[in-house]
Amino acid sequence: MEHRYDIAIIGSGPAGISAAINAKIRNKDIIIFGNEELSDKLIKAPKISNYIGLPDITGLELKSKFQNHLDVMGINITFEKINSIYAMGQYFALAVNEKMYEAKAVVLATGVEYTKPLKGEQEFLGRGVGYCATCDAPLYKDKTVTVIGYNKEAEKEANYVSELASKVYYIPVYRENPNLKDNVEVIQDKVLEIYGTDKVERVVLKYKSISTDGVFVLKSSIAPDQLMPGLILETGHIKVDVNMRTNIEGCFAAGDCTGKPYQYMKAVGQGQIAALNAVSYLDK
Amino acid sequence: MEHRYDIAIIGSGPAGISAAINAKIRNKDIIIFGNEELSDKLIKAPKISNYIGLPDITGLELKSKFQNHLDVMGINITFEKINSIYAMGQYFALAVNEKMYEAKAVVLATGVEYTKPLKGEQEFLGRGVGYCATCDAPLYKDKTVTVIGYNKEAEKEANYVSELASKVYYIPVYRENPNLKDNVEVIQDKVLEIYGTDKVERVVLKYKSISTDGVFVLKSSIAPDQLMPGLILETGHIKVDVNMRTNIEGCFAAGDCTGKPYQYMKAVGQGQIAALNAVSYLDK
Ligand SMILES: Cc1cc2nc3c(=O)[nH]c(=O)nc-3n(C[C@H](O)[C@H](O)[C@H](O)COP(=O)(O)OP(=O)(O)OC[C@H]3O[C@@H](n4cnc5c(N)ncnc54)[C@H](O)[C@@H]3O)c2cc1C
Ligand SMILES: Cc1cc2nc3c(=O)[nH]c(=O)nc-3n(C[C@H](O)[C@H](O)[C@H](O)COP(=O)(O)OP(=O)(O)OC[C@H]3O[C@@H](n4cnc5c(N)ncnc54)[C@H](O)[C@@H]3O)c2cc1C
Repeated sequence: MEHRYDIAIIGSGPAGISAAINAKIRNKDIIIFGNEELSDKLIKAPKISNYIGLPDITGLELKSKFQNHLDVMGINITFEKINSIYAMGQYFALAVNEKMYEAKAVVLATGVEYTKPLKGEQEFLGRGVGYCATCDAPLYKDKTVTVIGYNKEAEKEANYVSELASKVYYIPVYRENPNLKDNVEVIQDKVLEIYGTDKVERVVLKYKSISTDGVFVLKSSIAPDQLMPGLILETGHIKVDVNMRTNIEGCFAAGDCTGKPYQYMKAVGQGQIAALNAVSYLDK
Repeated sequence: MEHRYDIAIIGSGPAGISAAINAKIRNKDIIIFGNEELSDKLIKAPKISNYIGLPDITGLELKSKFQNHLDVMGINITFEKINSIYAMGQYFALAVNEKMYEAKAVVLATGVEYTKPLKGEQEFLGRGVGYCATCDAPLYKDKTVTVIGYNKEAEKEANYVSELASKVYYIPVYRENPNLKDNVEVIQDKVLEIYGTDKVERVVLKYKSISTDGVFVLKSSIAPDQLMPGLILETGHIKVDVNMRTNIEGCFAAGDCTGKPYQYMKAVGQGQIAALNAVSYLDK
């Protein structure tokens, strides 16, 4: 049997870090998924004046304070992106590509995607447009796939798809140079539209148009109800009560993914509430 | 007419400070009530390991970081204790003894009283037991009053009562020596019970018993529905939704007073949510 963690925390931004530290203090066996930067938004913040106790700090400085706190607590982030979470009744199953993790409780701290959907993205969702390349890659065996990557993490998924698909185009929506397998073709252009009739046929770019069977739009956060089927949303955010409980028992949420305001202290505070309620949930 | 503030914040603990800083950043005309220590609980915390970004800090150190943040923002705390708040429809009236303040919105961040009620305290509430000496002092003109003070702030109220009552006993429930007018008699003893039949008759102490017409029990926080008539509570805490709205329009709450967990990050996070929602409330 898989090792079954007490609490799995999805996301390494302020909300997830706070949840992890609080759960660890309560002696729970935790795992936290995220990335080395902790949070893209955090490292981009030029000047933060509302992190109480640390006036006038930059996002990078705050990031290193968070990292230090994690180090002091002996918490290591698992650098993996969770594709799907399934509520199995007594526990949750978390999928990272082919790998599976198990946990008795879950805290969702995935943040939100600020970017607007692309033209055609929502229209063709499930008809050629997908958010999880590694989940759906088998559908595109020997076909042509386009990956629109919003951050460097998307590169891993594009490389994985390229093992199955006959052709992979990669369109980066960020500045750094992508690091991809040789058989992935990088296109530096601006996406205008995902076009099709019944299903996706083309990606229309500013300077050209490419024929494709499928398009993966890979942003930092997957829509929460895509990530976890059955989760109830309210105006695009995870519906929580004042104790950060979602509609699924044992599943809690915190931070931007629960709604506005999008702010650090709110994220950290809710991360704590979510973790402590997850602890109570486990203890009974 | 009184100066009408945009937002009045009641309490200078982590929740109130966070509300004040966030409201000030949004350019609101605020007033925050509290005390020089900021929060009794904060300065007493020996070692805090869950203030994210500041691992292993003492309460006193965190207090000075909070004070520094207030200074950087140019926020001064008004060292006064609010006795009652009345929702007047378009605005709120806040009473400090004879003085009145006005504000368009209110954030309650009063913390909670951890101490258990005394024997007889709840039974005789309104029948000789009161929580606001300065409000009810006139009832005890030329009578005998006992003040049970849980902190040094209670001394001011005892002094005030002594101007009207014929006799004032003061029983301190803390270590420091009280600083009181000559006509107030200090009794260093442990309260066992507030006793009476129809109404309060005596305070029973460990070593003696004193006859009294009234007893004021003065703790750091007044019960929220005593402070603000009409406020709906749930298991002793102010009932709030996920946006920190109470049942009274324009009145928000944050921190320990909204319920468990009793924790800093939760208090600070909720203070932010309360303030930002108060700002939205004012803006429409
Ligand atoms: C430029 C900028 C400036 C800002 N300035 C301020 C400011 O001054 N003050 C303020 O209070 N707020 C500010 N914010 C907002 C603040 O950054 C966010 O509110 C905060 O980061 C939210 O924290 P979070 O933990 O909810 O989400 P995030 O910080 O977005 O973190 C979520 C993390 O989860 C990861 N993740 C998502 N899905 C998965 C998955 N399936 N598997 C594994 N990991 C996953 C993401 O990659 C990300 O690392 C600013 C934001 C930006 C962009
Ligand atoms: C010994 C100790 C150790 C602790 N350790 C930790 C820890 O390690 N980690 C953690 O997260 N939490 C800890 N806590 C809990 C933490 O202190 C509280 O959760 C936190 O202080 C709550 O903040 P608050 O702003 O809601 O209320 P408080 O900090 O209680 O502040 C409320 C303030 O409002 C003032 N006030 C109340 N009524 C009025 C009024 N009518 N008019 C004007 N002012 C008013 C009070 O005097 C007080 O100053 C500890 C508590 C104690 C006692």
